[in-house]
Amino acid sequence: MRKVLFLLTLLPFGLAAQTDSTQIANIFEEVLTQGACHDDLRVLCKDIGARLSGSPEADRAIEWGFEVLSSLQPDTVFLQDILVPHWTRGNTEKARLKTGNESRDLHICALGGSVGSQGEIEAEVIMVKELSELAELGREQVEGKIVFYNRALNPVLINTGAAYGGAFDQRSQGAAEAAKYGAVGTLVRSLTHALDTLPHTGAMNYEAGVDSIPAAAISTVDANYLSASLRENPKLRIAMELDCERHPDRMQANVIAELRGSEFPEQYIVVGGHLDSWDIGEGAHDDGAGIVQSIQVLRTFQNLGIRPKHSLRVVLFINEENGNRGGIGYAAAVKEGGEEHVAALESDSGGFSPRGFSMEGDDAQAAMVRAWSSLFEPYNIHLFRRGWSGVDIRPLKNGTVLLMGLVPDNQRYFDYHHSKNDVYESVHKRELELGAAAMASMIYLLDKHL
Amino acid sequence: MRKVLFLLTLLPFGLAAQTDSTQIANIFEEVLTQGACHDDLRVLCKDIGARLSGSPEADRAIEWGFEVLSSLQPDTVFLQDILVPHWTRGNTEKARLKTGNESRDLHICALGGSVGSQGEIEAEVIMVKELSELAELGREQVEGKIVFYNRALNPVLINTGAAYGGAFDQRSQGAAEAAKYGAVGTLVRSLTHALDTLPHTGAMNYEAGVDSIPAAAISTVDANYLSASLRENPKLRIAMELDCERHPDRMQANVIAELRGSEFPEQYIVVGGHLDSWDIGEGAHDDGAGIVQSIQVLRTFQNLGIRPKHSLRVVLFINEENGNRGGIGYAAAVKEGGEEHVAALESDSGGFSPRGFSMEGDDAQAAMVRAWSSLFEPYNIHLFRRGWSGVDIRPLKNGTVLLMGLVPDNQRYFDYHHSKNDVYESVHKRELELGAAAMASMIYLLDKHL
Repeated sequence: MRKVLFLLTLLPFGLAAQTDSTQIANIFEEVLTQGACHDDLRVLCKDIGARLSGSPEADRAIEWGFEVLSSLQPDTVFLQDILVPHWTRGNTEKARLKTGNESRDLHICALGGSVGSQGEIEAEVIMVKELSELAELGREQVEGKIVFYNRALNPVLINTGAAYGGAFDQRSQGAAEAAKYGAVGTLVRSLTHALDTLPHTGAMNYEAGVDSIPAAAISTVDANYLSASLRENPKLRIAMELDCERHPDRMQANVIAELRGSEFPEQYIVVGGHLDSWDIGEGAHDDGAGIVQSIQVLRTFQNLGIRPKHSLRVVLFINEENGNRGGIGYAAAVKEGGEEHVAALESDSGGFSPRGFSMEGDDAQAAMVRAWSSLFEPYNIHLFRRGWSGVDIRPLKNGTVLLMGLVPDNQRYFDYHHSKNDVYESVHKRELELGAAAMASMIYLLDKHL
Repeated sequence: MRKVLFLLTLLPFGLAAQTDSTQIANIFEEVLTQGACHDDLRVLCKDIGARLSGSPEADRAIEWGFEVLSSLQPDTVFLQDILVPHWTRGNTEKARLKTGNESRDLHICALGGSVGSQGEIEAEVIMVKELSELAELGREQVEGKIVFYNRALNPVLINTGAAYGGAFDQRSQGAAEAAKYGAVGTLVRSLTHALDTLPHTGAMNYEAGVDSIPAAAISTVDANYLSASLRENPKLRIAMELDCERHPDRMQANVIAELRGSEFPEQYIVVGGHLDSWDIGEGAHDDGAGIVQSIQVLRTFQNLGIRPKHSLRVVLFINEENGNRGGIGYAAAVKEGGEEHVAALESDSGGFSPRGFSMEGDDAQAAMVRAWSSLFEPYNIHLFRRGWSGVDIRPLKNGTVLLMGLVPDNQRYFDYHHSKNDVYESVHKRELELGAAAMASMIYLLDKHL
């Protein structure tokens, strides 16, 4: 009898641990054998394609997301209206380098949100590597010129996201800063380690009270060529033309599916990514991967009959790329409705092999998640670190909600990011599925243990 | 005074730890900023290309390896003669599926070492998934037929190498087993998770006393098509022709560079990969990556002025793919010369992002290496596990030498492995460099602490 009691006493813990590892094994098996996220990605990339906020393609992506989520028969699927910016690239974007009688076309593309050039601008070029150099040069040496920002990503940083962050100000603030000294345009070295002829677009900002000047990204190969040419001929000129345009805001939406919680229906757990992409490429890694992985979390729960205790929301956010209005709008509605959110997980770092998770939370939350790390060891998922979660879920931050990000291997990410090479073919089926299975496993653990 | 003594007492440990982490940081910075392994790989893949043992291209690769290693000015570079097999694919390899009046060409390639078909063979096809099924079917149902092995890689295994290992017998033993029951040829489903039209070659063995019958790999798309066709028409026939040929052995060589040890010159540490490749593709991941990473270890030591205490040998092994005579020959010479080897590290699992190291050694050796894991944390290298080291260094195993393997992320590896897609373009510069830096760091630690 004592033996029986002893066993019963041990049972709950033993069973719980076994159940977690068994359930996670079930999740990985389900996704690796029955997962449909790679097929979903093909449809999103090939049938819809690039889907910048405000575009008709983004409208179609919202419809598609609503249909796919509905087909998985959660308790509800609904749209949350979000007013988004609308910008179009137009048909002309060119930059021609002129030295004496020779000229050469450079590979450029407008940065997102740039004003057009209203015809061709021709000017001398001045190269800088830091925004702060402009103050040293002064208006005298900058006025009337095109400022060429040429600071490369730091190759020594292992985390390519950190290298990107260290060069990001050139793209985001470069035009505004150059305009303060009278520049007429900017060219920004593409934010990638890759040495090729692909320009990489991305968001940029103007400042109130400062002229809005045209801004374009230039490929790394062309940036190196331009830099070498400037050493030989500091007086060379560039003729640049962009006919991109800003339009009035349009109403689009976040797409939200909900599985009602069986025990704590008023407490929410969110998993998501962003449905919009830049307008070149197909937004495959950024962030088609996160979208189809989040949908796969719901599919996996449904296929395995996992009924969450908390209400689980899959959120396909709109407008991460140029405004984050989807993330901000979602968080505002949560606050307004007094909806308690206990955790949120975002995938927006590419569809590569998962390495781990990042956490934004307090010490107790971080310790709880780290205690699960051994459950992920069999899947070679080792990295559990404090760090950035995701742009879309960040506005939920309130001191109590645990925010997390899927961390995939990121060595290749910026080769594709915001370029025309970010296409379906660059995403590997198993790597994508492993990420989705890791996310479903983490959501399962959060739901069970929170 | 007591304070000074206290500091001095603490110094050695503090310094050692700091020196290791600082030296590893130096190594990563050197490789990520000055590394030439990606350029070396371009030359090996594009100027030389596929280099099967016995081929003129393998001769050229040996010359190239000797030159590159010599240019790094180690103490010695020498060739170790190795007699290798010589097999050629020939110009014809085809399989045509015939059903009624219709026919369709299948994507196949001869397995390495297969005999030719001596003209066209036409026969019915019998599909099996396990070699053991042949005994159940018996000679009655197998004789005169082409045996089609169609067991797919298990998608649930996270380690794709384990999935490969679980399907490998079809390729290595399938022809010998089928011949025992009178089969006239075999087609083997390509050993890859990828669903495409690429056949993947690789080594196969015949058995003494059993007929040698032609053996080819068939792409996964064609394997699925053939399987579906057989369900509809079990009597369908395939006409198959291979004109591959076995030739007399040829003398080729391992290429060996040596840095003489400053303290223990009679104790050796080896780092290497294999210089030969299959005869299709460019042998970029398998194992150009391991070759150029091993060379980069020497380059990094030389550039940073790291003089090893033990004698360090970079070994470019010949004939891993179809005989392992380079590895066996090296180990035999070591034994004959009484050269004490204390550690060996191989890279032969692709040039992808490094995830960690595998170890074949005793408990004390494994504990020593695991104690270094925190030094690799900043580089996202987390996996330190007992497990297979490498085919080329395995013959060194003697109960005292520590054998290790670089473990890269392997989700994509078998997409390329032994196929015409294993080309330079499939290897990522930073991923390759991170692997080389991890190897140089591990060799540095082994040399310092052994």
